[in-house]
Amino acid sequence: MTVAAERETARVEAFSDGVFAIAITLLVLEFKVPRLGHAASGAQLWDSLRDLWPSLVAFVGSFAAILIMWINHHGLFRMVQRVDTPFLYVNGLMLMLVSFVPFPTAVLAEYLGHEGEGMAAAFYCGTFVLVSLTFQLWWWTVNRRRLLHAHVSAASVARVTRSYRLGFAVYVAAAILAFWSAAAGLGLCIGLWLYWARLSYRAEA
Amino acid sequence: MTVAAERETARVEAFSDGVFAIAITLLVLEFKVPRLGHAASGAQLWDSLRDLWPSLVAFVGSFAAILIMWINHHGLFRMVQRVDTPFLYVNGLMLMLVSFVPFPTAVLAEYLGHEGEGMAAAFYCGTFVLVSLTFQLWWWTVNRRRLLHAHVSAASVARVTRSYRLGFAVYVAAAILAFWSAAAGLGLCIGLWLYWARLSYRAEA
Amino acid sequence: MTVAAERETARVEAFSDGVFAIAITLLVLEFKVPRLGHAASGAQLWDSLRDLWPSLVAFVGSFAAILIMWINHHGLFRMVQRVDTPFLYVNGLMLMLVSFVPFPTAVLAEYLGHEGEGMAAAFYCGTFVLVSLTFQLWWWTVNRRRLLHAHVSAASVARVTRSYRLGFAVYVAAAILAFWSAAAGLGLCIGLWLYWARLSYRAEA
Amino acid sequence: MTVAAERETARVEAFSDGVFAIAITLLVLEFKVPRLGHAASGAQLWDSLRDLWPSLVAFVGSFAAILIMWINHHGLFRMVQRVDTPFLYVNGLMLMLVSFVPFPTAVLAEYLGHEGEGMAAAFYCGTFVLVSLTFQLWWWTVNRRRLLHAHVSAASVARVTRSYRLGFAVYVAAAILAFWSAAAGLGLCIGLWLYWARLSYRAEA
Repeated sequence: MTVAAERETARVEAFSDGVFAIAITLLVLEFKVPRLGHAASGAQLWDSLRDLWPSLVAFVGSFAAILIMWINHHGLFRMVQRVDTPFLYVNGLMLMLVSFVPFPTAVLAEYLGHEGEGMAAAFYCGTFVLVSLTFQLWWWTVNRRRLLHAHVSAASVARVTRSYRLGFAVYVAAAILAFWSAAAGLGLCIGLWLYWARLSYRAEA
Repeated sequence: MTVAAERETARVEAFSDGVFAIAITLLVLEFKVPRLGHAASGAQLWDSLRDLWPSLVAFVGSFAAILIMWINHHGLFRMVQRVDTPFLYVNGLMLMLVSFVPFPTAVLAEYLGHEGEGMAAAFYCGTFVLVSLTFQLWWWTVNRRRLLHAHVSAASVARVTRSYRLGFAVYVAAAILAFWSAAAGLGLCIGLWLYWARLSYRAEA
Repeated sequence: MTVAAERETARVEAFSDGVFAIAITLLVLEFKVPRLGHAASGAQLWDSLRDLWPSLVAFVGSFAAILIMWINHHGLFRMVQRVDTPFLYVNGLMLMLVSFVPFPTAVLAEYLGHEGEGMAAAFYCGTFVLVSLTFQLWWWTVNRRRLLHAHVSAASVARVTRSYRLGFAVYVAAAILAFWSAAAGLGLCIGLWLYWARLSYRAEA
Repeated sequence: MTVAAERETARVEAFSDGVFAIAITLLVLEFKVPRLGHAASGAQLWDSLRDLWPSLVAFVGSFAAILIMWINHHGLFRMVQRVDTPFLYVNGLMLMLVSFVPFPTAVLAEYLGHEGEGMAAAFYCGTFVLVSLTFQLWWWTVNRRRLLHAHVSAASVARVTRSYRLGFAVYVAAAILAFWSAAAGLGLCIGLWLYWARLSYRAEA
């Protein structure tokens, strides 16, 4: 029984890891090769490559976000003892949002630095509001259906719950802020990611 | 011998999971970034994003469909004790249909809400008729070649067979209906997916 | 030692399976959504979808080819006891050719049924000549470096070697034939794939 | 404890392998099907295919580079006993650079053989300077945080460190050289890859 449960859990984890890995690697497709024609000089090519800075910002941001989500998912899965069908659907919903991230990333890359950047950044941050909601639903399902290992303490559970609530609140604030200032909204997201990265660093040390 | 059979089964499962995971993650490529030029205002960008609702419908529908197929495939694989070469080809045929889904999804996203939406929806539902046929062939092969674990009951086998027949009938009806009304055809598909999701939920509870 | 060797082999197999799974799933990107504008009728859309038959031929052919290669690779890996660094490079070279297949597939889809179809089919078959060469090199390396399990008989080795030689000869003939008749060249490839599929079926029965 | 550590390490390795496998397989998307219209003759198609030689150079180069990085990563992971959170971030940073490689590859394919090829080749080699830096950071982290197996000798560690320093120096030289001559810069990279491949060959023999 326990062996079967472990194999099941491992397979769901492998499928989820696959979606994370593919979504994170597809981000690069957002970079568009400058089409300057064959007579373009090196200097012109360099200018065009430099003009891709919004793509770089969007790429690095989304890569970091998905990486942190994966590390997070990875850490939480260590607490999960078994999976059931409702869990599979909730996990699938979460993966749907994760796999959607390359689209708002491409929208942000297209409009950052231009007139519509506020809306693009709000759309980008707004996607993470939804991602955050599905992670909360995931965590709620895992707890509610008692899928955790017995040795996971109530304090650990409470810590994760608090961390998700904070994430949700910050993303909502970032999405609203982004309408006025794309830089401020994105900065708030980046601040959250750095905070989370630091938190997991410290937890380990 | 049993260890080798298990490793074999695990490898085929992993390859299949890979194809499911990639097909489901490629769906996002169907969203096209609105190219409004750099002078576009936030309001114009928002209008363009809202106009992508057919892409969203197609994305969510296909994601749900592939997810349910994966959960289904996953559940059935638990009943499979060993694999042989004929099974590998039938499994491959099924994966071919699964990996094809992103194309009718993109067609639906392009034409939904416009003149040709009936044909696009019929093409979309028609693809699932074929997917359903290959799943039936898969199940028939597994039974015919006695690849199931000994402990799988005749009642379980009959239940799966019935469920596949139902799916096939509903998809055919949806494909025909879609010519008259895209919404009705798609609605029928969505109804089937919800029914299946509910079924697997209840089976667990 | 044996456990380490097994883990090593399993990891290389998993990486190779990943490349096979991704290459096979990327094939669908070759289908281009017909861009008829929003006023297009269902009948016009249907005509455009029907005009995609070359894409369907190319998709099904390449899917079958990669699937057979994977099943083949899979069968041979069961004979491999351990891997070493030279093997990793040869295996990588083979994967490079496999991952290249989506390009000649897309070229074939674009030109089949038109003036340049002979050249497109020759390019397509020619790619498989190279694929076949790398599979032969793979097999030669495995034998030469004594990576096979001790229980693999000389007869089995000879059978695989003969099968690869046949494949190479047929692909060369198909590539040459395709210049005169795309259908004849492609038909020869399809015949070979059916023959191989039948062979592995019979080996099992 | 050791079993858990091993499972953890295996999962990170599998995720990393996934990103390597996807990035290496996405390289083929850089080849653009010649759009000559349906009246194009076979000879015209052949000319267009031949004109894709820069794509072929870029494809083969990047495939080889990612393959060698994977084999390398694979070899080093055999020395790693356990992973911790800081390691996950550093490993993620390295994967970000690896997943970025398809973009400079596509830029190189577009401009090689034309006016701007020096800049394109410098951008390409420059990406590998950054890749090389992240591999060094990875290796530094693994050593600094004592994640290696106890049986790894100081001599092995020193050998890897030297090899990375050499790689960094050669890539910097190649990036600078490429401004004057794309061929010279790329040649230097290829030389390095052949040297590394030879080195790992010999280590085995």
